[in-house]
Amino acid sequence: MALKVCKFGGTSLASADQFRKVARIALADADRKIVVVSAPGKRDKPDTKVTDLLIAYADAKLAGSGAEAVEQAILERFAGIIEGLGLPGEQFETVKTILISRGEGDRSHRARYIDSIKALGEEFSARLLAAFLQKEGHDFIYVDPKDAGLVLSDEPGNAQVLPESYELIRPLRDSAHRIVFPGFYGYAKNGNLVAFPRGGSDITGAILAAAVEADVYENFTDVDNVFAADPRVVDKPAAIHEMTYSEMRELSYAGFSVLHDEALQPAFNAKIPVHIRNTNNPESKGTLISLERHNDEFPVVGVAGSADFCTIFLSKYLMNREKGFGRRLLQIIEDADLSYEHMPSGIDNISVIIKQSSLTPEVEHRVLERIRSELAPDKLLIQRGIALIMIVGDGMTKQIGIAKRATGALSDNAINLEMINQGASENSIMFGIRNEDMNKAIVSLHNAFFGK
Amino acid sequence: MALKVCKFGGTSLASADQFRKVARIALADADRKIVVVSAPGKRDKPDTKVTDLLIAYADAKLAGSGAEAVEQAILERFAGIIEGLGLPGEQFETVKTILISRGEGDRSHRARYIDSIKALGEEFSARLLAAFLQKEGHDFIYVDPKDAGLVLSDEPGNAQVLPESYELIRPLRDSAHRIVFPGFYGYAKNGNLVAFPRGGSDITGAILAAAVEADVYENFTDVDNVFAADPRVVDKPAAIHEMTYSEMRELSYAGFSVLHDEALQPAFNAKIPVHIRNTNNPESKGTLISLERHNDEFPVVGVAGSADFCTIFLSKYLMNREKGFGRRLLQIIEDADLSYEHMPSGIDNISVIIKQSSLTPEVEHRVLERIRSELAPDKLLIQRGIALIMIVGDGMTKQIGIAKRATGALSDNAINLEMINQGASENSIMFGIRNEDMNKAIVSLHNAFFGK
Repeated sequence: MALKVCKFGGTSLASADQFRKVARIALADADRKIVVVSAPGKRDKPDTKVTDLLIAYADAKLAGSGAEAVEQAILERFAGIIEGLGLPGEQFETVKTILISRGEGDRSHRARYIDSIKALGEEFSARLLAAFLQKEGHDFIYVDPKDAGLVLSDEPGNAQVLPESYELIRPLRDSAHRIVFPGFYGYAKNGNLVAFPRGGSDITGAILAAAVEADVYENFTDVDNVFAADPRVVDKPAAIHEMTYSEMRELSYAGFSVLHDEALQPAFNAKIPVHIRNTNNPESKGTLISLERHNDEFPVVGVAGSADFCTIFLSKYLMNREKGFGRRLLQIIEDADLSYEHMPSGIDNISVIIKQSSLTPEVEHRVLERIRSELAPDKLLIQRGIALIMIVGDGMTKQIGIAKRATGALSDNAINLEMINQGASENSIMFGIRNEDMNKAIVSLHNAFFGK
Repeated sequence: MALKVCKFGGTSLASADQFRKVARIALADADRKIVVVSAPGKRDKPDTKVTDLLIAYADAKLAGSGAEAVEQAILERFAGIIEGLGLPGEQFETVKTILISRGEGDRSHRARYIDSIKALGEEFSARLLAAFLQKEGHDFIYVDPKDAGLVLSDEPGNAQVLPESYELIRPLRDSAHRIVFPGFYGYAKNGNLVAFPRGGSDITGAILAAAVEADVYENFTDVDNVFAADPRVVDKPAAIHEMTYSEMRELSYAGFSVLHDEALQPAFNAKIPVHIRNTNNPESKGTLISLERHNDEFPVVGVAGSADFCTIFLSKYLMNREKGFGRRLLQIIEDADLSYEHMPSGIDNISVIIKQSSLTPEVEHRVLERIRSELAPDKLLIQRGIALIMIVGDGMTKQIGIAKRATGALSDNAINLEMINQGASENSIMFGIRNEDMNKAIVSLHNAFFGK
């Protein structure tokens, strides 16, 4: 018998109907031993996520006014779910009691207080799903992260899992009952409740999957699969049914919002396949992310882009004979607390690509001054409005003709290439272009590699 | 009236007939006020350059045996030239006397002694050319670098010009006579004769051209022009009649042996156009190297390649969030006294390209150990046998389709691209390929851009 950890995102739990879908999916496969849930998300576009309501509630409590209306809204959401699931009225009383008592908690540390409130969305989701499954006659229990041993660093809102968690959680594997587990939070060693960064339920699921050595970590969301390009940019992009961890990582970094690669990292580290699936269409194939892919129909699995970078360009005659030039440049960047993306270089020139948003006028001034005085370049330019486009595919650099297809597609669409970067053994090629060409570039690259 | 400094290379002065060609060229244009000469080069393939004979002579003298035979060979070379030019026998006596007395000089400092001997090739060339021109009734005089004020750093065999030289040499501009000047050497402030590195006559000419603010620096060699690719690799490569300093610099770096870009640097700094011409075919158009080119028939001016690089490849999950990763890697490279060529990067990986020859097993071991212990990469690989191919052309990155043509040519010839690097505002694109594909790549890129 296989062991599966499955996690359901916010839209999968947005209403009683969605809870029923989740229950159906959980019950459809006896291997789904651990079900991790998010807080109820949006039911439709204008709706508000429960987590956002909870944060507003905490803020209002801290501000000392306006909490009543938010409290009402939160309770209404859960009342609707409880009623829709046919759960007894005492469930609502429990939710209300916990919310109010937690609201009256210690407000001396702002971030801790917010964590303690915003985690309630997941706690209530998990409690209600477990109650519903029990009511329907199934052997599911609610397990609290504290009881399971999910120990995190004491960093409110940005907690990290501590290594001992894995050993502590491991016995869940042999639990006599199937488990519903709230995502998004755990406890510091001092007993404080602390939350992960956003996307935290994905992290919880990934940690649990790793800890119990699951055969697969099923991540249920509201899309059928990962697409080869952003569907807001490309009309009906190709579906990707298989990809590797590193492909996902590159795409996620390059602007794919469907995936939170860092959140899934604990599962990747433990080499547990991650299966992205759709709660609203459980029949669809989904996207399986694992160490290696078997389907190599496409050398490239995706095209992604990200706008608003800038390049600091330096040229200096005989630069390449000046030992330490690049290192000193990066030191200046680092001292200004900036991260750089890439550093393509010519013989006498070097460009550092940086997120435009991180280069405030003040930082820019300081960095340029230091570059001028310490590196004495012949030329020093800043170019803004650069978009970085990535084509990603494992081993594609070993296949001849990829760069030709990509540069051909860009050139045929009159897109000028400001930069190109492909390193040894890489599974991506980066193209630097003008911001305004970004969507056109994504469309042409998608069509070049996915036959449209 | 314009002012020209012209310099003749070794093959231009290999024999009396060649001296006559040089004299004819010098006399053909009254603007050629300063003529800089190399030592006599090879008359044919198996021949030995006079400079090499002089170095052998110095070595023999230092070793204390075998000098006589070399002395004889040197004197024969000059006897032939003197006789062929119809110069009086006393010229030969002068050459012999100087050679022997210099040979008996202070041998306590080996490198200094070698410099004092090997510089004689240029000195004799210049003295004999001046004597010949005088004999033919022209107002040329021999000017010694010491008298002209060519002051160099006291680094035997690797001297650098000192800034004051330019002011000291400047009056040559207004000399009443036309001048023959020996290349390759000058004097340190302490009066020691010191030689430039190899290619030093080019340096002398460039310094003189800059000092007298020449309108052009004519560099006479034995090729009609610079070619778009190495003629030993590409059959009848395209001729390049115009190029910019920076194009030349990139090509020279990338393996173009016809040009010594650093040697020409003093002229470039002073914005003096350099005209590469052929002593054996003075009618040919040559190649004019200047700040800007007017002929933009070709977006690319040349293709060059250089083999035997290696890449150190590191990958590490979340590398790009680790501030200072690239900088610390370059610090390790720098501490090992290595230079790197490029540093292409992906999201979680980075490659440093290094000349294979500089990475001895001992250095490699030390560098890899430090990388492992200080940067803890998930993966660390060294890939050898990498050739770097450059296509070069000013502003070509502003023209759409260059990358397409290049990657298309490589792909059509089944050449796999290991790396690509093109930075902002660059006038080159670098392709990293396998050594064994280098010549094929140069041919296909040449043909793609120069229509064959």
